[in-house]
Amino acid sequence: MLDLPTRHLHGPGPSPVPPSVLEALGQPCIGHMDPAFMRVMNEVREMLQQVFGTENEMTLACSGTGSAGAEMLMDNLVEPGDACLIGVNGVFGGRLTDKARRAGGVVTNLHADWGQSFSRTLIKEKVAELKPKIVCFVHAETSTGTLQPFEGLADAVHEHGGLLVMDCVTSLAGRPVELDAWGVDAAYSGTQKCLSCPPGLSPVSLSERAMEKVRSRKTKPNSWYLDLNLVGNYWSGSRAYHHTAPVNMNFALHEALRLVLEEGLEVRYARHRRVHERLKAGLETRGFRYASDPEWTLPMLNLVSIPDRVDDEAAVRKRLLLDHHLEIGGGLGALAGKCWRIGLMGHGATDEAVDRILAGLDAVL
Amino acid sequence: MLDLPTRHLHGPGPSPVPPSVLEALGQPCIGHMDPAFMRVMNEVREMLQQVFGTENEMTLACSGTGSAGAEMLMDNLVEPGDACLIGVNGVFGGRLTDKARRAGGVVTNLHADWGQSFSRTLIKEKVAELKPKIVCFVHAETSTGTLQPFEGLADAVHEHGGLLVMDCVTSLAGRPVELDAWGVDAAYSGTQKCLSCPPGLSPVSLSERAMEKVRSRKTKPNSWYLDLNLVGNYWSGSRAYHHTAPVNMNFALHEALRLVLEEGLEVRYARHRRVHERLKAGLETRGFRYASDPEWTLPMLNLVSIPDRVDDEAAVRKRLLLDHHLEIGGGLGALAGKCWRIGLMGHGATDEAVDRILAGLDAVL
Repeated sequence: MLDLPTRHLHGPGPSPVPPSVLEALGQPCIGHMDPAFMRVMNEVREMLQQVFGTENEMTLACSGTGSAGAEMLMDNLVEPGDACLIGVNGVFGGRLTDKARRAGGVVTNLHADWGQSFSRTLIKEKVAELKPKIVCFVHAETSTGTLQPFEGLADAVHEHGGLLVMDCVTSLAGRPVELDAWGVDAAYSGTQKCLSCPPGLSPVSLSERAMEKVRSRKTKPNSWYLDLNLVGNYWSGSRAYHHTAPVNMNFALHEALRLVLEEGLEVRYARHRRVHERLKAGLETRGFRYASDPEWTLPMLNLVSIPDRVDDEAAVRKRLLLDHHLEIGGGLGALAGKCWRIGLMGHGATDEAVDRILAGLDAVL
Repeated sequence: MLDLPTRHLHGPGPSPVPPSVLEALGQPCIGHMDPAFMRVMNEVREMLQQVFGTENEMTLACSGTGSAGAEMLMDNLVEPGDACLIGVNGVFGGRLTDKARRAGGVVTNLHADWGQSFSRTLIKEKVAELKPKIVCFVHAETSTGTLQPFEGLADAVHEHGGLLVMDCVTSLAGRPVELDAWGVDAAYSGTQKCLSCPPGLSPVSLSERAMEKVRSRKTKPNSWYLDLNLVGNYWSGSRAYHHTAPVNMNFALHEALRLVLEEGLEVRYARHRRVHERLKAGLETRGFRYASDPEWTLPMLNLVSIPDRVDDEAAVRKRLLLDHHLEIGGGLGALAGKCWRIGLMGHGATDEAVDRILAGLDAVL
């Protein structure tokens, strides 16, 4: 049998998984067309709607990790020649750009320094200028620990017939996500961040306005596997067989969502904020500085500048992992070697975790 | 917590999952860049190589179900304008055609009646005529229970610079699959058939010849998520982060593969054949007839004509499921309402399972 180490997961994800989610994951498999599995899917959808803050019928768990959910939205929402406006202030905006281009989109990027977010005024100006069909920003940039507010953007986007699309991979269930209140037309997330479920599924949600565009496409999307006109019929409506769903992963997501709603979303958000403040205070006492915009620092993903006294940052992370079973993340892309990313996500956002992280850093540095 | 029924899974998949695979699935999650997970990936690759009968370096578990693996191959191997020859003698050849066309392929189909396979002579004639870049057949058609032999085809395909591609979703680990001996350039499978692992991953393997084509593409593949030039770097070589792998599903696949090799491939194939003969004898005694070509009937997927005396075949399957917790499959596509598909796959290919299926049919009919 596999001989696996136990890790304290405080990188950019996966996050620690509660025992009952692992237990649900390991339940005996049932068929993907079994009425009992249809009930699981319905309940997953209902719980996802609550966490996304939406009544969107087209809310489901895409059968791949977060990057598959991103591609599902780009592939279905972007038609060849569509003007797209995509914000890039970290790795994931760049990836969305690549995906939108593969779908045939004509992408204009709005750039900001990594760790900074975009002002509402700037976004609205650019939307008025370009009148894009798709406007896409990353709510919580996992590569920079920075929040991009979405409130107050939708009207400007809708005025020109565009759709507002949100990456909420790292924010969902860790801080407020309100698709309907903010007028977001489509969003995708991942299971392995603040939902504290293993990686393998990508929750997505699309408004009726977005689905109208999907249904009236003139060309098929690039992907058959992610084609929402086909996948949607399996998750809702006719229940027509499309692909074999990852049954056990959906069991796990069901339990993860149950735990989220049992705790309560507001309580959960407050816990993430409180635990983040504890980590921040401990890090600042030790002379660490945050590299993300102080106004928009994410609670669940802490971007910390690596102090000058650290010669070999990879060796530090390796010692934390191998000697202390503590995983923290290195910098990604432009921030590689310059920053660490410390995750306090979902089941991992606890006072004990903060103390363990600080003790680990004290021991290694 | 989820209240799930226990089912005896004898449809077209998922198949029953052994307890130790469920246990592996439910192990605490670790990071997708953790050296311990790299070891898991290496061992998964080595074991997949044995099961695929190949030394292909590019052998990995694609992060989606079997349909994602099919799409990974079509997306990466087909360049816009490429002539493709795809056999259609069931549902899955049709789906491959759709995927190849979305990738820009110019597809010619070779058709056979559902339940029949193609003669080597016919395939070679068509290859000589069309000189296709991609030649693709379904080794074990899950919709018809029919085997398509692959021996003796590769030379004709390679002579014209083409690649031979195989769907072995339902055959892998249930009857011989010999990529290297047969000269197959690329193949994909699923975890939820004869590997007896829950659905969620798609084992794929590509020869060096196929990877040369992938590396020398003039255009990017449609999909970023399935782009083998990116995914390949994570599974092999530089280990560069691409997407967050479904960590726990890979734990389960690791254990499922370990069990397959512990039993031994030849012993496992023989078990599938023997148990199939037992079912066939029992069904024929009861007056059932097979709808697949007798010469090429699959052992793990039994296509049975629904007797005239059965008025409402869906009601029969529903009673088997709800009263006897026994899942068998209905007909798919052109065979809907005409046939049942009875699976004896992996952990579910046992004498006890055969007796349970026959007793269930006796009780309900």
